[in-house]
Amino acid sequence: MSTAALIGLDWGTSVARAYRIAADGTVIDTRSADCGLQKLGARSFAEAFTDLVGDWSREPLPRIAAGMIGSRNGWIEVPYVDAPATLAALAGGLGRTPGGELAIVPGVMVRDREGTPDVIRGEETQLLGALASGVGDGLFCMPGTHSKWVALKAGTIADFATYMTGELFGLLSRQSILAHAISDTKVAPDNPEFLAAVAAGVDRPADIANRIFEIRPAQLLGFSPIGSGAVRLSGALIGTEIAGARVRFGKLDRVHLIASGSLSKLYAKALEATGSTVDLLDADAVVLGGLHAAALRLWS
Amino acid sequence: MSTAALIGLDWGTSVARAYRIAADGTVIDTRSADCGLQKLGARSFAEAFTDLVGDWSREPLPRIAAGMIGSRNGWIEVPYVDAPATLAALAGGLGRTPGGELAIVPGVMVRDREGTPDVIRGEETQLLGALASGVGDGLFCMPGTHSKWVALKAGTIADFATYMTGELFGLLSRQSILAHAISDTKVAPDNPEFLAAVAAGVDRPADIANRIFEIRPAQLLGFSPIGSGAVRLSGALIGTEIAGARVRFGKLDRVHLIASGSLSKLYAKALEATGSTVDLLDADAVVLGGLHAAALRLWS
Repeated sequence: MSTAALIGLDWGTSVARAYRIAADGTVIDTRSADCGLQKLGARSFAEAFTDLVGDWSREPLPRIAAGMIGSRNGWIEVPYVDAPATLAALAGGLGRTPGGELAIVPGVMVRDREGTPDVIRGEETQLLGALASGVGDGLFCMPGTHSKWVALKAGTIADFATYMTGELFGLLSRQSILAHAISDTKVAPDNPEFLAAVAAGVDRPADIANRIFEIRPAQLLGFSPIGSGAVRLSGALIGTEIAGARVRFGKLDRVHLIASGSLSKLYAKALEATGSTVDLLDADAVVLGGLHAAALRLWS
Repeated sequence: MSTAALIGLDWGTSVARAYRIAADGTVIDTRSADCGLQKLGARSFAEAFTDLVGDWSREPLPRIAAGMIGSRNGWIEVPYVDAPATLAALAGGLGRTPGGELAIVPGVMVRDREGTPDVIRGEETQLLGALASGVGDGLFCMPGTHSKWVALKAGTIADFATYMTGELFGLLSRQSILAHAISDTKVAPDNPEFLAAVAAGVDRPADIANRIFEIRPAQLLGFSPIGSGAVRLSGALIGTEIAGARVRFGKLDRVHLIASGSLSKLYAKALEATGSTVDLLDADAVVLGGLHAAALRLWS
C-alpha cells in the first residue's frame, strides 16, 4: 500500500471531497460530505473540515483545496489572479486559512473586450490537472450550471468566458411558461430534434429568445412530440453557447471537454455534430491531478 | 352624449377591460376587473362576464372580445387563423360563446423557416386598430413578457415572431444568481450602461449567455456600480431581441412601437440608439380601435 504524501480537497457550494494522495498522484482513499458553502448550516468551516478529514488530519501532510471554499462566501477569500495566469502565479496566489488547516488555490479573473470581468474558481485546478496529464495547449470546455470555456496557451490560462447555459436550462424548464411543455428534463444526445436545435442555435444565435418561446406553441399545436420540450430547449441553449464560444475563441476545430455523466455526452454530440473534434477528459480525474500538480509545485 | 353602438372587451390572463363604444369609435364608458384567466378562481367565465358588464348587458348591442379569453384555457378555444391573415380572415374566424354572450377574435399562427409554429392572440386586434388609425404597412414591435414583432404587408398580418425577453428578465432578475446583483428592477432609458448593453447585444447576440453572467462578477469586483445589474440585464436582453428581429425581418429602419409606460421608453431608446426611427402607438388606443374595426366589419 502506498504512503500518503498529500491531502487534496475539492470544496464547492454543495459537496466537499477529500483525497489522500500518494507522491505519484495515485489516490489512496476518498471521503466526501454535503458540507459545501450552502450546506454548512450553523457549523463553521473548521468544524466541517475536521468532520470531513477525521483521523487524516493527524498525519503531518500538506493539505490543499480548490473551489468555492476560496470565494467571498468561503472559509477565506483568496483574491483572483489575473489572466494570463501561469502555474507559478497560481502557486504564488495561494491563500491559507487562519488555523493553518489548508492552502487554497486562487481563482482567475479575465476581462472581455469591453473590460467587463469574468471569473473561474475551481476550474483553474482542473486545467492544471489536464496540463499535468500531458494535454497541451488548446481550448477547453467545462459544461455545467455556468459553463466555462478556457483557452490555454503555452501552459498558461490565457483567456476564458462563462456561459450561464445550465442555470438558464433549469430556470426555463421549471419556472417559465415552458414548464408546461417540459415534463422530463432528460435529453438523449442522439435525438434528431436535439441536434437540429443545436445547429439552429449555432447558425442563428440571435433567434434564441424566439426559438425557446416556440417550444410551447410547437407542442400545443402538435408540431413537436410531447416530451421533446427539454430536448429543444437544451439544444437551443447549447447551440447558442457554442456560437458564443466561436465568436470569442475562433474556430472550434478541437475541443478538450472536461465533464462527466450525461452532460459530457450531450456536449460531445453537440460539438461533433457542428464540426469539432472532441477529446473527453474526466472531471474528477483532472481536479485530482490539479491538486497534486499544485502541491508538487508548492512543497517539492 | 353619444349612443353606444358596441361593447368591446380586452380579456387577458390577469385583467379584463370592457368598453362601451360609439359608432364613430369614441369610448363612452369603461369598466375593468381582475377576472383574467388566471384570476377567476371558482367563478365561471359567464359569471365573470355578467359581473363585469353589469347593466350594459341589457342593451341589445354587439359584443366582441379579444385576448387570451379565446385560448385553450379561455371561455372557448377559438382556433388560430393562418398567416398571412387578412381582416376578412379574422372576421371569418370569430368564435362565439355558447350562451351568445360574446364574439371572440381569433389569434394568428405562423411558421418559421424550420416550420415551427409561433402564435399571437390579442395582438392581432391591436394591429387592426393600428391599421384603422391610418398607420399603413410596416414592422410593429409590441414589447412585453413575450415581445411580438409583426410585419404587416398590404393590410395583412404577413409574418411575426415572439421573443421571451420580458419573462427572461423576470426570471433572471429574481431567481438566478443575478438576483444577488439586482436590487431594483427599474431601468432608466438614458443610462449609458443600458445603451452600451443594447449595442453589444445587437452586435454580438451569440454572447448573450456570457454577457448576462458577467453582471455578477462586474459588481463583485467593483467594475460596475451597485444598482446597475438590472440596467445591464435589460439592455443585453433587449439588444439580443433586436438582433433577432433583424435576422427575421431585415433592416429595422422604421419601427411602429405599440407599448405603454416604462417599456415604451426603454424600447424606443434602444431602437433609436441602434439606428431605427420609432413611431409610438398607444397600446390601449389600438386595442380599442381594433375591436371597433372588427365590429364594423362584422355588423355593418
